[in-house]
Amino acid sequence: MAQYDDDIAVTPSGDGRRFAAELDGRWTVGGGLNGGYLLGVLGNAIRESVPGRPDPISMSAFYLSPGRPGPAEVVTEVKRDGGSLSVVAADLVQEGETRITAVATYGDLDRFEGTVRTTAAEPELPPVEDCVSTEQMGEEMRALAPMYQKFEMRFPADGLGWAVGRPSGRGEIAAWFRFLDDRAPDAFSLVTICDLLPPVAFDLGLPGWSPTLELTVHVRAKPAPGWLKLRHLTRNLAGGMFEEDCEVWDSAGRLVAQSRQLARTPRGT
Amino acid sequence: MAQYDDDIAVTPSGDGRRFAAELDGRWTVGGGLNGGYLLGVLGNAIRESVPGRPDPISMSAFYLSPGRPGPAEVVTEVKRDGGSLSVVAADLVQEGETRITAVATYGDLDRFEGTVRTTAAEPELPPVEDCVSTEQMGEEMRALAPMYQKFEMRFPADGLGWAVGRPSGRGEIAAWFRFLDDRAPDAFSLVTICDLLPPVAFDLGLPGWSPTLELTVHVRAKPAPGWLKLRHLTRNLAGGMFEEDCEVWDSAGRLVAQSRQLARTPRGT
Repeated sequence: MAQYDDDIAVTPSGDGRRFAAELDGRWTVGGGLNGGYLLGVLGNAIRESVPGRPDPISMSAFYLSPGRPGPAEVVTEVKRDGGSLSVVAADLVQEGETRITAVATYGDLDRFEGTVRTTAAEPELPPVEDCVSTEQMGEEMRALAPMYQKFEMRFPADGLGWAVGRPSGRGEIAAWFRFLDDRAPDAFSLVTICDLLPPVAFDLGLPGWSPTLELTVHVRAKPAPGWLKLRHLTRNLAGGMFEEDCEVWDSAGRLVAQSRQLARTPRGT
Repeated sequence: MAQYDDDIAVTPSGDGRRFAAELDGRWTVGGGLNGGYLLGVLGNAIRESVPGRPDPISMSAFYLSPGRPGPAEVVTEVKRDGGSLSVVAADLVQEGETRITAVATYGDLDRFEGTVRTTAAEPELPPVEDCVSTEQMGEEMRALAPMYQKFEMRFPADGLGWAVGRPSGRGEIAAWFRFLDDRAPDAFSLVTICDLLPPVAFDLGLPGWSPTLELTVHVRAKPAPGWLKLRHLTRNLAGGMFEEDCEVWDSAGRLVAQSRQLARTPRGT
């Protein structure tokens, strides 16, 4: 079993609406569990709740309190099950406190093939071998971001100013992505992958933790095998909040996921 | 009372979690009730559920079945109430069937002022007086779209190709907006206004009804009085679905709302 699938595993308990999970402390960065990983766990319980609907198509998650490593429960409620899509609400709960409340549409992406008309522009990145890998991070950085044991990102050397106190001010961060155990990206894992890049506020000169209020992911196609390209973009920071759009492009040049989150700027900024 | 506020009115019944509403048949277009109007009704019940949190900040709605004119009920559940934000889940129900299931974050936008750094570009539209008004529509069109009794839009003459069989193919529709009774736009009404432009698929040569699967609105600031600018944009039509981004700009040139929906292309396209 690939590491990611093991990390998001859930066990049905009782009435088929409750699922036990064990949140893996290695999915942390800066002390907090990554929101995309939590969405993977929650989304996996939803998938178990609607057999025959393997793919998340649209998922909206509201983050109420920070998740902690250790036991968690996901409680699901099927809101609609008919036609070719199911809509399911789900809460991720720890110690009686809701961490995430979410709603999602699941279906089978194979049933939604057809014309592709994409005018969005694929991010231009230098070849993977010419980029700077998270595998090259020093010990200190690795200790701060244990989740880089799970996957690798490769950044263009000239797109790393935000990491050394020289943000571009454009509000854009892009990188190549793969799971370190070479698990192929699939439609499901995109709900996690959409939230793995560093917060785009870094590139506006606002380092620190940017807590997510809400994150919506649209999974638009099954990705082809190989490296993915990820790009974060923000165009409207105001009132202590900013939107963060993530695009995921596969090795065939297809835009396979689009997400948008609303996040708060780091404390004190 | 302004017409919009009257149309979205809800009456608490019983335990403070249930609200009765009467869906106004004039908010229809092509036979169906507008999704933004339904979100206004649902959002109004949420507002009543969390006193002191007047403004929707992020709202995600999943459309399960088409709303019909007549009585409806909204059932709310406060998921978190603390700090400066509340998170509330809500269902809009008719005849025992859920029409919309939604989650929203509410707060007081006055508490979220601060630096504004917007790199998004305001839509360029000719002056209001040089644009083509929905008030100039023929009787036949007005009968098909009773909701234009509620508000006025003004389109640039060269941005109306989609209405006469000459879509630009760019996937973009923009217009000026005001309520016909000159009710000032406020933060709340933006959840409705984000869904009032014609479906952006029209501009790709795909006329017809594009049912919304999911719509998320971020209300980013209280709009200044006066005409608003609205712009719909899509960049990824694929597998019979497309994303539709709406931006709302106020008369002071501020980006006050951003929404994204995932919709299905019209039947048969």
